[in-house]
Formats: sequence, C-alpha cells, structure tokens
Amino acid sequence: MTNDFSWRGVFPALTTKFTANDELDIPMFIKNLEAQLDAGVHGIILGGTLGEASVLSEKEKQQLVNAAVGHISGAVPVVLNIAEGSTREAIRQAKLASEWGAQGLMLLPPMRYKSDHRETVEYFKAISASTDLPVMIYNNPVDYKVEVTLDMFEELTACENIGAVKESTRDVTNVTRMINRFGNRFSILCGVDTLAMEELCLGADGWVAGLVDAFPVETVAIFELVKSGKIEEAAKIYRWFMPLLELDIHPKLVQYIKLAESLTGLGTEYVRAPRLMLQGEERERVTKTIKDALKTRPKSVESV
Amino acid sequence: MTNDFSWRGVFPALTTKFTANDELDIPMFIKNLEAQLDAGVHGIILGGTLGEASVLSEKEKQQLVNAAVGHISGAVPVVLNIAEGSTREAIRQAKLASEWGAQGLMLLPPMRYKSDHRETVEYFKAISASTDLPVMIYNNPVDYKVEVTLDMFEELTACENIGAVKESTRDVTNVTRMINRFGNRFSILCGVDTLAMEELCLGADGWVAGLVDAFPVETVAIFELVKSGKIEEAAKIYRWFMPLLELDIHPKLVQYIKLAESLTGLGTEYVRAPRLMLQGEERERVTKTIKDALKTRPKSVESV
Amino acid sequence: MTNDFSWRGVFPALTTKFTANDELDIPMFIKNLEAQLDAGVHGIILGGTLGEASVLSEKEKQQLVNAAVGHISGAVPVVLNIAEGSTREAIRQAKLASEWGAQGLMLLPPMRYKSDHRETVEYFKAISASTDLPVMIYNNPVDYKVEVTLDMFEELTACENIGAVKESTRDVTNVTRMINRFGNRFSILCGVDTLAMEELCLGADGWVAGLVDAFPVETVAIFELVKSGKIEEAAKIYRWFMPLLELDIHPKLVQYIKLAESLTGLGTEYVRAPRLMLQGEERERVTKTIKDALKTRPKSVESV
Amino acid sequence: MTNDFSWRGVFPALTTKFTANDELDIPMFIKNLEAQLDAGVHGIILGGTLGEASVLSEKEKQQLVNAAVGHISGAVPVVLNIAEGSTREAIRQAKLASEWGAQGLMLLPPMRYKSDHRETVEYFKAISASTDLPVMIYNNPVDYKVEVTLDMFEELTACENIGAVKESTRDVTNVTRMINRFGNRFSILCGVDTLAMEELCLGADGWVAGLVDAFPVETVAIFELVKSGKIEEAAKIYRWFMPLLELDIHPKLVQYIKLAESLTGLGTEYVRAPRLMLQGEERERVTKTIKDALKTRPKSVESV
Repeated sequence: MTNDFSWRGVFPALTTKFTANDELDIPMFIKNLEAQLDAGVHGIILGGTLGEASVLSEKEKQQLVNAAVGHISGAVPVVLNIAEGSTREAIRQAKLASEWGAQGLMLLPPMRYKSDHRETVEYFKAISASTDLPVMIYNNPVDYKVEVTLDMFEELTACENIGAVKESTRDVTNVTRMINRFGNRFSILCGVDTLAMEELCLGADGWVAGLVDAFPVETVAIFELVKSGKIEEAAKIYRWFMPLLELDIHPKLVQYIKLAESLTGLGTEYVRAPRLMLQGEERERVTKTIKDALKTRPKSVESV
Repeated sequence: MTNDFSWRGVFPALTTKFTANDELDIPMFIKNLEAQLDAGVHGIILGGTLGEASVLSEKEKQQLVNAAVGHISGAVPVVLNIAEGSTREAIRQAKLASEWGAQGLMLLPPMRYKSDHRETVEYFKAISASTDLPVMIYNNPVDYKVEVTLDMFEELTACENIGAVKESTRDVTNVTRMINRFGNRFSILCGVDTLAMEELCLGADGWVAGLVDAFPVETVAIFELVKSGKIEEAAKIYRWFMPLLELDIHPKLVQYIKLAESLTGLGTEYVRAPRLMLQGEERERVTKTIKDALKTRPKSVESV
Repeated sequence: MTNDFSWRGVFPALTTKFTANDELDIPMFIKNLEAQLDAGVHGIILGGTLGEASVLSEKEKQQLVNAAVGHISGAVPVVLNIAEGSTREAIRQAKLASEWGAQGLMLLPPMRYKSDHRETVEYFKAISASTDLPVMIYNNPVDYKVEVTLDMFEELTACENIGAVKESTRDVTNVTRMINRFGNRFSILCGVDTLAMEELCLGADGWVAGLVDAFPVETVAIFELVKSGKIEEAAKIYRWFMPLLELDIHPKLVQYIKLAESLTGLGTEYVRAPRLMLQGEERERVTKTIKDALKTRPKSVESV
Repeated sequence: MTNDFSWRGVFPALTTKFTANDELDIPMFIKNLEAQLDAGVHGIILGGTLGEASVLSEKEKQQLVNAAVGHISGAVPVVLNIAEGSTREAIRQAKLASEWGAQGLMLLPPMRYKSDHRETVEYFKAISASTDLPVMIYNNPVDYKVEVTLDMFEELTACENIGAVKESTRDVTNVTRMINRFGNRFSILCGVDTLAMEELCLGADGWVAGLVDAFPVETVAIFELVKSGKIEEAAKIYRWFMPLLELDIHPKLVQYIKLAESLTGLGTEYVRAPRLMLQGEERERVTKTIKDALKTRPKSVESV
C-alpha cells in the first residue's frame, strides 16, 4: 500500500486489548480487527484516546502497529495517533510510526500546554515537515483545550501531507464553515459518534468512530446509507444506535466501549491504571443500556 | 381558523417594526408579513426575542396581534410568545393572547429565576391549564438558564394542549432523544437557524426561523428540500446561507436581522432602547456579510 | 435624611414577606427590619433578587418602600433595586422610587438582553441622569449575563450620582482592579456572601448581604472585626457561618434564606409562584444545615 | 535534611532555564535559586508547569534536582512535581525523585484522563504508598480537569505522607471548607498568585508562587505581613503586585514570567518548543506591564 490513500469512510479508533495480567492481548486485538475489516471499514486508527495511548510504552505501540500492518496487508491504511508534549518528541514518534509501517498519522496539538495560534501552527508544520506520511489534524478543543481555527487551517494548506481533519469541536456548523472556506482541500471526518449522521448529511467525508469497536456493521451501514441518500433509513439505525453512541462522549468511553466489545464478543473489559474496570451500579447501568440495545438490534443492517 | 393547527413547517419569529419616532410601524410589519406568506411559511410567531418583547407595552402587543390576525385571515396560525417572571402574570398574558385572536402560544420558563424541575413543570402546567390555545414549549437553556429536560416533558404529556417544543438547547442529539422517548407526541421545531438543516435531517418537524425575516424564500426552500429527500440541494443553499444564519446566534440578532431586512427591502433598522442601532465598524462588517451573500444569492430557489 | 449617605457597611437585601394567602405580610417585614436595625446595619435594599422583585406588582413595591421608609425614619438609607428590560420603564421606576421616598437606587443592566458596551453605558447614563438619587451599579455577569467592565466604569465616572458597585462578578481580584484604577471613586460592596470577608480584607467598603436576613448580628460582626483589623476573630465567625453563607449562592437562595429566617424567628417560608416552598429531602437537608449551625452559634458575637 | 519538613510558607515553582542552544542553563538556574533563598523562601518546587515539565527529558530532571539539592544543602526542601499519565510511570518517577535527593513530591491527578473519584483516590494512594517522601496534592481542576474533592481528601487522610494541598481550584471558599472539614490535617498552599493574599487571610499556610521567580522579596513580604496581621500593609504591596500576578493566570505564564525574570536579572527568555518566545505586540505589552511595575516598586519591602 502506498501512502496515497483517501481520508474517506469509517475509521475505527481501536481499543488496546489487555490480558488479565496487564499485558497486550494481541489475539483479541486481531479478532476485533477482523470484524472491522469484514464490516467494510476504510482504515483504522491506533493509539488514540480509545487506545489508552497515555499508558502505553513505546514498545507496546510498536507491537500494535506491527500486528495491525501485518494482518491487514495493505487492504486499508493503519494510522497512528501522535499526542506529545514536546515538539522534538512528536517528531521522534512520527519517525517511529513510519519505521513501524504505519501509513498515516493523526496529530493532536501539544499536550498539557495551551499553545497559541502561532505555536500551534508551528508545531503542526514542524511535525508534518518531518514525515512523508499523510496527516490528519485532530481538532478537539473540548478535551484538549487548543482549537484549531479556520485561520490556522489556512496556514496549514501549505503542508501538502496534511489532508484531513478529525472534527471534534462539537460545533456541527464547523463542517459547513470548513467546506465554505476550503472546498475539498481537507477531508472532514466526524470525531464524535453522536454527531456523525448530521455531519455526514452536511458533507463530511468520514467518521472516526468509537462504538464501531463493538458494532462495526451498524456504523458502516449508517455511513453508506447517508452517502447513498437514504436519510430516513439511516436515521432509523442512528436512533436505535444513539443510547450506545452516547457512551462515546463520556470520560469513561474506554471502559464503556470495552464493556460493549465484551458483550458483542469482540473484546474484554481489561484496562490499565489509572483506569479501573467498571463496578457496581455504574457497570450495571451501562450493561443494561447495551443489552437493551442488543434486544432491538436492527436485522436489516446485514443486507445493506 | 380553529386552534387545531399543525406544529409543522417554517414559523418565522417576526421582528417588531418601529418608526423613527419609536412607534410601531404597522405598514412595514404588514409588508414583511406578506413576503412571509408569499414564500409559503406555515405560521408566524410574535413577541419573541426577535420581536423585542421585553420592551413592548401591552397595548403594542395587542396591536401587533390584531394586525397580524386581521391580515392573515386564518391562512396560517398566529402564535404569541409568553415570557414572564410570575405565574399569575403569565396566565393573564395567555388570556389576553386568546382575546386578541392569537391561535397558539410559545411559552418560556419563568424569566429571571432558575426554577427547578418541580417549579418549571408546575409553571407550564398552570399556564397551559388556563388556556385552550395550543402551546409550544420554548427550550433554550443557553439564553434563559432553565433546561426543559426529557423527564419534565414526560410530565408535560399530561397537558393535551402542549404539543410542540422549540428546540434551542444547541444539543442536536436532543432531537433524537425526544423522538426515541416520545415518538411524535411533541412536534419538534428547531429554534437555532444554524442547526436547522441537520435537525430536519434527524426528524425535526419544523423551524422557528430568524433570518427568514429577510430571506423567506431560501428558508422555506431548505425546509421543503430536506423533507422531500433532496439533501445535497438543500446543503448547497444552506452553505450559501450559513454566514447569514450565523447572525442569528449573536446577542445582537435583532439589530443584525433588522439590518438584513432593510437590505432586502423587508424592514428598517429601528430598534428600541436599551438596544441601539448598529454603527461604525460593526455595522460595516455585518453589511458586508449580507451584501456578499446577496451577490451569490441562489437563483434556482425561486423554482423550488 | 438627605441623599448624601455613604455606601459603606452592611446593606441587607431584604426578603419580601408574604402571608399564607400570597399577600404582603408587612408586620413580619417590620419585625425583620427591626432586627436589622438593632444589629447595626448601615442601609437596606428592597426589590432585589432576594426580594422576589420579578413577581411583585408596582403597588406592592410602593407598599414595601413606604413601610420601610416610614419605620426607619432616616436612620439608614432605603435603597430600591431597578431591574427592567426597557430604558423607558427603568426611568419610570426610578422616578417612582424617588416619589415613594427611597434614598438610593441599585441598578442592574437591562434584563433579558445582553447589551454591549455602548448600550450598557447608555442605559446606565440615561437612568442616572433622570434621577437625583445616589446609584449603585449591580455588577453580576454570572446571573445577569452583562459584565460591567472597568472600561465601562471609566465612562460612568461622568455620572456624579453613580457612587458604588455591588461587586458580584465572583472574581475576587476585581476588588483590587477597581481600587487600582479608580481609587475611592466608587465604593465597593461585596454582593456574594461567601466572598465577603476576603473582599473586605482586600479593601471593599461594604457588603450587600443575604444571610444577614436571618443572622444580622453575625454579619455585622464580621464586617466590624475585619475593619478593625481583627482578622483571626473574623475568620472564626466566618468559618462557622460558611455553611449558611453557601445557601446564598444557590438558585433557590430565596427559599433557603426564608427557611433560615423562619428558624431564627425573623420570617416565614412563604414564596410566590413560580417559586414554590421547599419540600421533602431538600427541605430536610437545608433545615439540618441551619440547625447544625444554630447549635454552635458563636456566643461571643453579642459583645463585639 | 530529613523529610520531616513543614508545608508552610512561600514555595516558588521555579522555571527551567535554557541556553540559546536549547540546553539546560544551570548557572542561571543557580543564580535565580540564590535570589529565592536570600529572600527567605521556605522551599522550592521543580518540574511544575512553570518548569516546563512536559518537555524535559528524564536526564534533565535529574540534573535540575541534583543541582538544586547540592546548592541548597538542606536549608529548605526541594520538591519535585509528578505529572504522569500512567500509574506505573508515576511510581517510577517518585522513586527516581527520591534517588535524586528530592525531599518532597507535588502530585497531580493522572494526565490526559479525567479519572473518577475511585480512580483518582487509587492513583494517589498507589503513588504515596510507594514512597517515603512527603506529598502535596495539586488540586487544579481548571487546567487539569480532575477536581480533588473534599470527599476524596477524606479518603486520603489514610495516607500519612500526604500532608498538603496546592489549592488551585480558583474557588477561594475551598480554603474555608478544607479547614472546617479537616482542621490542620492538610496544609493549604495557595497555588494561584492572584488569590494568595485572600487565601492567606482565610487561613492558608503557604503559597506555591509564580511571579516570585522574578520578585522573590515582594512575594515573601506579602506572606510575612499577612501572617503577622498587617493586612493593610500587605494589601498595598499586593495591589502594586497585581498587574504582575495576573501574568500567572495566562496560558503563557511560562513565557511571561521568564520575561519578567529577564527584566529583573534573574533569568532569560528562552523556552522550549512547542512554546515559542514572545514577539511583536504581545511582547511589548507584557514588557510594558513589567516595566511600569518596576517604576513604582515598593522600596519599603526591603526592610520588612
């Protein structure tokens, strides 16, 4: 696979599977990956928030990328998330990603520092200039404080390999603003599960998805239905899906989605500290939400 | 016209026209009203934020309702907004609305007090019980602090004449939550111009619109296109419209929309204190936004 | 009493007492007023949030002002709050206040409209120019959206009768900023019970107080102790007082403070709709907070 | 020095000095450190936000701790900040801190994950149990999302070496709440420069300071004056100091304080990417703020 892929379609942000001994569970990781490929996803993302990036060692990241790249064999691109505090470390990670075989990067603004306009643009420019990989900017001011504004994107048009944005501002109108300002210069992938259908209706190109980890078929179905103009059919699945999709916008999205994966047979509940496994009333409540949805899971989706 | 109308379609929240002497300008009000009716709106709303309700005397409200009802002759319903601080005063206003000939009420939670669940529900119940008019609850926690939650709506299902919500929470997902919980018990009318197309895609029934005051044809076109499944055509107009629609989500929406009305020949810029007419850089900037849009106004809309 | 009083000391924002039949309870109002005077307050404020201004009729406001002015006989000033949506109505209210015998005005920015810099200043100027009464600007952007900025106060120095600010921005540093910019041009009265001691330490001149309605002696004690440099003694009372003072920063401050008044014998719990009397768990919890405090009420305060 | 020091007084959060070649500038670091000791600070903190912790390598942290410990020779404690994403990495850092000679730890909740009550407490317990060093919890929900609530502190009383909190909630009342609930179990050190005097008046024990890096004498003076009951004298310096202290509550506090250090001869402006040195209008504006303050620097402070 060349690095000339298209930022379009459903890109699952995969969870990192652990064993009961807090080690990587590669077999389970591959099992989930196969379900994604079977459902027709268009790429995968490793080392995001859902991948518990902040607790992974460098060696573990390498193992995950190697495993995914080896298994997928170029069918769809493997994208690694870069979320670092210092510019020099981010550049080093981008270089490693390429060496490990990743075909694209997702890139957050600096961690732990609310960089200003100039600093944010310089950061993105320095990292994208250091790599040949295609880059998707991750725009999430709600969780990571820095908003990548339209004026910043204007400056980033100078970086040829920056070709997409993971749009997570929660401001749905930003899809329209981006299209009005930049046409199709940047692919727009919705990064918030609960806003995906509406952003696709407004012209977004893809969906960096979360609940897809447990429900790949339904996620791909909504994308394909909207893109073929079947809005009402998409809306029906989307409404059924919403109580699950809302699990994606909670601080414990990793635990919630891992619980969903375990209930659909695509993962386990193990997380790494400081995250702890769900317990008590919270675990019961989320389990109920998932099981209630499973009872009314749309059958027709299979044939989309 | 009976009070048994449908909360569906485009409901302009009309501005109140003033003369240079700070008196009601009824002829200009009627001129605008005719443009709305010509464009095919499905109802009109008086005395909302856009109507500068907080500076109108009781007599002026009566004049506006009388003028509208007399001119429309039942073709579409005339809805009056009720926004009061005390329960007894709100009940009195609802009674007056009916006497003046209004066919429906839009009802905000208590002004100036952040009532809790029980108080909010009691307030809505007391007022709706006092009138035969159909009632639309105006749910706008951003501007008016009180959110009307789904659990509150559950209790309000007991009030038969409460049949709609003006959804202005800015949380687009609330459309899906309302439908999942209540089916079609409550009509959902989007109350935020910049979120209208996406909420209609998700199943909203109508649009309480603002920029419609200056651009009735384009507003009705978007509604009709979405409802007939022509998403891409709707999106094209919506993108063109967006810089104008964004004027609706600014504290000075009254002045901005009145400026737009004056530039499309459907109104004047006069406002009542404490509001002041725009001046200087701000007036130039908003004028430019409007004039830029007028240059590329979609022609095809006429034939929708 | 002339209108040349000093904006200094403790100014209780009095609650409006109602009977079980939802009518004014003037005898109870006078009883509370006497407790305030006995404790040594320096002025009183009527028709504020705590006075349930938004549900009072014009006639009732007049009765309250008349009762207070008649009873106090000039010992301390009676201040009426002006909180209106239109400039012309605010001017009319200021005129009435003067006719009824009030000796000062507290003035909020326009209600229900987030006026900009120019509009806010024009509003304040128009109203203060219409009256001879001393005016205190009420700066509370948290509850009323409009912040009165330092640059606005700069323009308001032109209005001689604007002599004070009720500082309720919650930004304690604003006390220092006001002093650094304007010296003693504007008296600063803390408008948030939970921030009073620290703002007095920083140089504030007074305290528009809430829990004072039920605990006048303790409130005056803290003021006097801080002003005489007895910080540690003030802090001891303040710490005891804090669980009560926190009742002042809740949306239901009226109900909570009326409950406190009823438990200290200085009022009743009756409120007017949309406010409802407390019930169930909430009433029990607040009652416990108040009774717990009464058990450890500082005795030494009496002799301050 | 034993680890049995007192969390009381002024603890500067020192900046990390860099050369023009982006390497540690140890001589300048020592120069600043000496000024702090001369002024009478009670401890120092390394590797905080002001120390640009997120861009330092492990080796650099070691060099800084070694340099400080060696120079101070036990006169005051050297505290290292621990801000990590994973529990295992935080435990490893705590062990290193001890090996390098640090005498205390400042401990943030997990980075990049909004841990819940149970997870946050478990995180703090695991790290404090792994070390003999005294620990100060850094409570800053504004910048780091997780609030360490009073109920969490209740559970943390079980950890003997957790003895202090850096109080940066911006909610001044939290000082009073902590004292009311825990007496003197936890020392309270104000972590927000602009709130220091008021929190000291309310009973806080110390001040983790920022502008102290450039103005050690004035910072110590305010602490000592408040603690000896000279409130008005403290307020005078505090008012003079405020335009400078406000530089501490800006996202660019590192650059601003380094500019201040360079103007008082105690540092340089060099920062590490993604931070960039100030330029243009912003640099001029901050320079003016600092120079204006230097013109009116209180002389009397010297003799406090």
